[in-house]
Amino acid sequence: MRLYVGLVHFPVYNKHNETIASAITPMDIHDFARLGKTYGIKGFFVITPLEDQQALASRIMRHWISGYGAQYNHHRKEALGLVSVTPSLDMAVKKVKEREGLTPTLIATDAAKQKDRAISYEAARVFLASGDVVLLLFGTAWGLHEDVLQKADHVLEPILGGSAYNHLSVRTAAAIILDRLVGKSDC
Amino acid sequence: MRLYVGLVHFPVYNKHNETIASAITPMDIHDFARLGKTYGIKGFFVITPLEDQQALASRIMRHWISGYGAQYNHHRKEALGLVSVTPSLDMAVKKVKEREGLTPTLIATDAAKQKDRAISYEAARVFLASGDVVLLLFGTAWGLHEDVLQKADHVLEPILGGSAYNHLSVRTAAAIILDRLVGKSDC
Repeated sequence: MRLYVGLVHFPVYNKHNETIASAITPMDIHDFARLGKTYGIKGFFVITPLEDQQALASRIMRHWISGYGAQYNHHRKEALGLVSVTPSLDMAVKKVKEREGLTPTLIATDAAKQKDRAISYEAARVFLASGDVVLLLFGTAWGLHEDVLQKADHVLEPILGGSAYNHLSVRTAAAIILDRLVGKSDC
Repeated sequence: MRLYVGLVHFPVYNKHNETIASAITPMDIHDFARLGKTYGIKGFFVITPLEDQQALASRIMRHWISGYGAQYNHHRKEALGLVSVTPSLDMAVKKVKEREGLTPTLIATDAAKQKDRAISYEAARVFLASGDVVLLLFGTAWGLHEDVLQKADHVLEPILGGSAYNHLSVRTAAAIILDRLVGKSDC
């Protein structure tokens, strides 16, 4: 399986539907890395153009990969080895292409249903099973900017929990989506 | 569906396998409440005997339910309405019993497979579908104490992601488990 995950901090929306670069949530880096390790993804990109935020992400990684954290908890070290801090989505695509020799299929996620571009979890599993290189994108703050959704080859169906409420954190949404795409449950 | 969720802060293990009461992670309260609202659970218990931690949880809830947070983000208000801060598992069971008129079936979660007591996600879905009252328990820190596992009627199968790594955060594990038990995916 050749699955990569990107957590996009720019361009995303704020609650007023304005385009912003969001701040990094350190816990997200840990949660995504641990999820990625559990589900066997090949790399995780923290995408932000802000240099202070890149430095913050790098500092977190240093602590857990070669600093005190590496001795304190080696499971974190193992997971954080998946992380690359990257200034843009284009750069993340370029890195995947260099590594795999193929341009990845971009699959975006969104809490709202995208009329013409929505694909099912089953369809996305077929891409992965057939050996396609996939870069799966998650948006921070109020979600991925329309420019990113337009650039994506597909947008995954939103998560339906059986209620009208769909305001999950990006960490928990990513957990559910990775399990639906890769997990082996008895469902 | 009569599903309740409990996040246990005592008794749990630390990394040295000692029994501790863990500190509350404020983000967990938000993430669990938003998950609970998405998947239509009836209540979420933050279980801690420590009074300062109970006060912290109550302060978070006040901010989002009646303080500034309620105006800032009404989706959080809606989700945090599910939360009860409770000093013990026994008290959480008592509250569920008072509300439902039935003692809940206790289903614990654990990252390690429990030989004789493990049940599948499919079996747990059958309990829920048949109208059983279920209290699903998650452990913070290094996981639920053996006393809690012994007290539980069942222990869910661990999450398998297809790799040998199983060190998810409790937030993301809860997301995956709720989706497996309640979510309607196309899998």
